[in-house]
Amino acid sequence: MRTRAAVAIEAGKPLEIMEVNLEGPKAGEVLVEIKATGLCHTDAFTLSGADPEGMFPAILGHEGAGVVLEVGAGVTSLKPGDHVIPLYTPECRTCDYCLNPKTNLCQSIRETQGAGVMPDGTSRFSMLDGTPILHYMGCSTFANHTVLPEIALAKVRKDAPFDKICYIGCGVTTGIGAVINTAKVEIGSKAIVFGLGGIGLNVLQGLRMAGADQIIGVDLNDSKVEMANRFGMTDFVNPANVTGDLVAHLVELTGGGADYTFDATGNVGVMRTALEASHKGWGESIIIGVAPAGAEISTRPFQLVTGRSWRGTAFGGARGRTDVPKIVDWYMDGKIEIDPMITHVLSLDDINKGFDLMHAGESIRAVVEF
Amino acid sequence: MRTRAAVAIEAGKPLEIMEVNLEGPKAGEVLVEIKATGLCHTDAFTLSGADPEGMFPAILGHEGAGVVLEVGAGVTSLKPGDHVIPLYTPECRTCDYCLNPKTNLCQSIRETQGAGVMPDGTSRFSMLDGTPILHYMGCSTFANHTVLPEIALAKVRKDAPFDKICYIGCGVTTGIGAVINTAKVEIGSKAIVFGLGGIGLNVLQGLRMAGADQIIGVDLNDSKVEMANRFGMTDFVNPANVTGDLVAHLVELTGGGADYTFDATGNVGVMRTALEASHKGWGESIIIGVAPAGAEISTRPFQLVTGRSWRGTAFGGARGRTDVPKIVDWYMDGKIEIDPMITHVLSLDDINKGFDLMHAGESIRAVVEF
Repeated sequence: MRTRAAVAIEAGKPLEIMEVNLEGPKAGEVLVEIKATGLCHTDAFTLSGADPEGMFPAILGHEGAGVVLEVGAGVTSLKPGDHVIPLYTPECRTCDYCLNPKTNLCQSIRETQGAGVMPDGTSRFSMLDGTPILHYMGCSTFANHTVLPEIALAKVRKDAPFDKICYIGCGVTTGIGAVINTAKVEIGSKAIVFGLGGIGLNVLQGLRMAGADQIIGVDLNDSKVEMANRFGMTDFVNPANVTGDLVAHLVELTGGGADYTFDATGNVGVMRTALEASHKGWGESIIIGVAPAGAEISTRPFQLVTGRSWRGTAFGGARGRTDVPKIVDWYMDGKIEIDPMITHVLSLDDINKGFDLMHAGESIRAVVEF
Repeated sequence: MRTRAAVAIEAGKPLEIMEVNLEGPKAGEVLVEIKATGLCHTDAFTLSGADPEGMFPAILGHEGAGVVLEVGAGVTSLKPGDHVIPLYTPECRTCDYCLNPKTNLCQSIRETQGAGVMPDGTSRFSMLDGTPILHYMGCSTFANHTVLPEIALAKVRKDAPFDKICYIGCGVTTGIGAVINTAKVEIGSKAIVFGLGGIGLNVLQGLRMAGADQIIGVDLNDSKVEMANRFGMTDFVNPANVTGDLVAHLVELTGGGADYTFDATGNVGVMRTALEASHKGWGESIIIGVAPAGAEISTRPFQLVTGRSWRGTAFGGARGRTDVPKIVDWYMDGKIEIDPMITHVLSLDDINKGFDLMHAGESIRAVVEF
């Protein structure tokens, strides 16, 4: 079949909207009509050429929602008409990782996914002249139709709006999951969130759900305050307005350091501040942000020997097929908010405007509706 | 009263054996006759002048065992004749730290202990000319008699030999506790221990107690193998004999990385190797060793985002008054071994020889018997 897609022809160039060929699903695969997709910093990172693992031409996008059109041989958990959210972290439920309760990093299709192809080693996408186009993060949601492995699709309720729940495919789950699955924040905790963008806001509402007492947001941009307050922030710190040492200021503000801190900036200097602002004896600092290639975190080992833990999270520690449908329920039940974070809705033809808005800091999340 | 002690007059000089004055215990304090004390690298670190918090003159030593001679006003948990192990990490059972199950770092007397004095701000030790001598780590076990706060003494059974259980005051508890209290290693785990000295050997036997399946020791010195095997090591790796990348070798040897890794070297480069040799998704790396002043650990944040945790431990996460008596029981019951690690027993007059043996790598633990 043919479908319309925004294709990343090469690094550093705008996406090109075009008709592409899409082969039908092979065994274990599912054809999905994408109804909406968010634009995430990770897409922009790869498109920029800064991602050392980026490959072109490819169809980017990994934060989508849509409807199953067709299933390949052997697919048992999905049928045409089901509503689904693509998962860049699949959940096969049989690999060593899925069977270990300590991780969500299913490895069953990692190699082919990293190589931009389906598990059989080939791509379903191609240019009209036959040139293959690579898949991206196993999802390729910047296409009106895409093919994914069955294990990379979460089945969700049908009454949930695509243009909102697509955000659960990455940002919402990453932020809330970092609190609930990775940190396992307890009621009454004190927490600090560094970076109040699309991930940071979801960390805030995760902390509110978890019953944290003090939820401090840290950002260089005062304009983030209003939205952050809406998502549960109790205190705001703009480092530009702090005289003296930021860590010391945060330790004083929390009465000894935070029980949990979260980096949602990707800046390795901020990651260090986050660790050192956590409480002696029991503070945990969780890295969510993706750092530039080659960047390293550092600290004195004394920070760890005196009881702080340095950890990280990917996709919020969520097992997608199990956890994503629950988060959709939380949204539909009003336990979490998504609507105010979807600041722009665009057509596929305008997808490059969405990246412009992101780079200008004008959007929290821009969503493309098909 | 007067007692004999090995006094650190100044940094970089041998200890001087001399008679010193010792005031009796004030309220909440206890006079202890030290029967035996181990010599630890931390004592040598402070004596060398490399410890930025070192102060002189002081009576070093923090790994002792002895008998209560006299108790000050208000002391209720100890009486003359009780056998005790001094605790450089006290356990007041009332501060915010003692009341938080996530930490053992009692802070109730931290400031005065760090300043080399008793909780009332004064020292009990002085030269015969009246010059005050500082306490060290709240213990000062390089004296035949010393005074400690009640909360810094673990009461232990009377049939346990002083010249062995003194080692539980630091090295044994630090190594075993890192496994049991900090890492909480599960039966069947794979683990790597970097550094097979006095701490590393105790990590090994902690891992054996915890039921680890694979216990890899890493050391540059092949002569450590025999003793390490005795304490539970199942595989030995000498990095000097590994061609190529050490991390890759260890990941292959463990079939994907270790569930738990422990640094018992104090070398920040080794700490990085330990982290990166832990398993993607769930590996935990525990820093035990004390790094040189100013040294920093580094890694790519990707190591944490893909599921590894970087943590540390002090005194093996043990709450001394509660846990140390249990470890003495384990020793008396034959669950753990200490005797082979006590390689040298010296008199107080020969204490400097003990440090020479340590620096020459000829001792595991030298113990001074009074």
